[in-house]
Amino acid sequence: MNKEVITHGFRQLQDRICKRLESIDGRSLFHEDLWDRNDGGGGRTRVLSKGEIIEKGGVNFSEVYGDVTELMRQNTEINGNSFYATGVSIVLHPNSPHLPIIHMNVRYFELDNGKYWFGGGIDLTPHYVVPNQAQQFHAGLKSVCDKYKSDFYPRFKEWADNYFFLPHRDETRGVGGIFFDHLNESEGLSKQEIFNFCVELGDTFAELYSYQVDKGVQCKVNSEHIEWRNLRRGRYVEFNLVNDRGTKFGLISGGRTESILMSLPSMASWEYNKAVSPDSDEAKTLTHLKKNVDWLNYS
Amino acid sequence: MNKEVITHGFRQLQDRICKRLESIDGRSLFHEDLWDRNDGGGGRTRVLSKGEIIEKGGVNFSEVYGDVTELMRQNTEINGNSFYATGVSIVLHPNSPHLPIIHMNVRYFELDNGKYWFGGGIDLTPHYVVPNQAQQFHAGLKSVCDKYKSDFYPRFKEWADNYFFLPHRDETRGVGGIFFDHLNESEGLSKQEIFNFCVELGDTFAELYSYQVDKGVQCKVNSEHIEWRNLRRGRYVEFNLVNDRGTKFGLISGGRTESILMSLPSMASWEYNKAVSPDSDEAKTLTHLKKNVDWLNYS
Repeated sequence: MNKEVITHGFRQLQDRICKRLESIDGRSLFHEDLWDRNDGGGGRTRVLSKGEIIEKGGVNFSEVYGDVTELMRQNTEINGNSFYATGVSIVLHPNSPHLPIIHMNVRYFELDNGKYWFGGGIDLTPHYVVPNQAQQFHAGLKSVCDKYKSDFYPRFKEWADNYFFLPHRDETRGVGGIFFDHLNESEGLSKQEIFNFCVELGDTFAELYSYQVDKGVQCKVNSEHIEWRNLRRGRYVEFNLVNDRGTKFGLISGGRTESILMSLPSMASWEYNKAVSPDSDEAKTLTHLKKNVDWLNYS
Repeated sequence: MNKEVITHGFRQLQDRICKRLESIDGRSLFHEDLWDRNDGGGGRTRVLSKGEIIEKGGVNFSEVYGDVTELMRQNTEINGNSFYATGVSIVLHPNSPHLPIIHMNVRYFELDNGKYWFGGGIDLTPHYVVPNQAQQFHAGLKSVCDKYKSDFYPRFKEWADNYFFLPHRDETRGVGGIFFDHLNESEGLSKQEIFNFCVELGDTFAELYSYQVDKGVQCKVNSEHIEWRNLRRGRYVEFNLVNDRGTKFGLISGGRTESILMSLPSMASWEYNKAVSPDSDEAKTLTHLKKNVDWLNYS
């Protein structure tokens, strides 16, 4: 299976996800921008804004290639002389503080030295953590993982706990999900099977989000909820700009800045040394932002 | 001159600056938090919020020391076995879009191998650039620089242009100012003279800001100004989290996160692919966000 087939598959995945998200939102449609990368390749950025459910959401497809620069060699695990990378990357920021932020990314890398790998991940960042919704989310991810390899879910869940983590806050970004990288035939799966796994995850994404929307959309919103949502978005900004390797790779590899930073919310806030009341919903959420929570069996 | 004297001088500088800023604001006072660093040292964080002029402003003093960690060695220019660092660091976010964000930092580093150096900088980030105010700001910095060494202003002005720059936006953060690092006796100045230069800059800071406040505080504010202020703040967040070496050093050297990130505004926003009207004040500001503008002789 060659890179053209993979690229085409990811492009189609973007189409299906956008269509499904437009149907979930019910009001706004995606706006599309095509862009070219100076040094090779380009992308198809789609942004939905001011929707009924989604305040700002982006679903990016990109296909970039060219020389591996010195900057890339120093700052990423990319080596070799030239690279090819394609993928779909999504972040949705909902209006309601009772709906979670969600992220998904699937990607394929190929180097001129013949090495290739797939990577990706899905994670959920509730403004307010609701344990049984986190459980449902993890159960959905596990059921996709289990079709391909029995250790995928536990390995990738742990990987997500470690990846979606803000060391300077000693907090996880949200309730995690799965994260994986450098997947190739050394897993005992064919290239086609790993590709299928990525695509199936992509097709599960909108369904998992739809469930979260159904659960939270009726909850009443007050000004404290909004304030807390904005502070939680501030943390999201911190993660994406300080810790996220995908953002870093995008910015230093000459990706399109507007497409990369579409992951940032419309508005975010910071408050010096914010204190939360004991036993408040905000305080409870903070207790959940930990690694190694067994969400599947949470009780 | 030993590190204790320098540290004491910086602590007193913080006192004077806070007093002067409280007088400029006229409403709010600084709130002080003392903190200890686990691995040695600590700081005195002072935050003023919800003022008449200043929405959120922090004036940090810190004195941190200990072993040079592997993380520090990889990510900064610090080597040797142990380090000592002290300094004062300031960011002010005003309420009015017609007043600029301002930053100042002076710092002293010492390594156990006997090396020492001073660093620092002041730069101005107007939400709307007003050339004759930028000119006044640069003139004030030049007059301090010129007392110490004739090439300080031109060298440090250029350094600031290159430092306070967002490569992914191809924009300067604002109208620049001065930036310097690794200053020591190789400048042909004594340690005492370089220290005096840092302190004099610090004492000039509040006066320079006071001038900016006087010029802008009467300007009328509408909702478009606020929207633009929030977008410009978003860029400030990007710089601080993606590009700023001081923030990076603080976060990886185990500094106090709340003190380091007090530089972030109360609220910031991002809009995908924001377009500005031709000839608008916003468009004019964008044309000013360039390196190598000769603000002193701007006409």
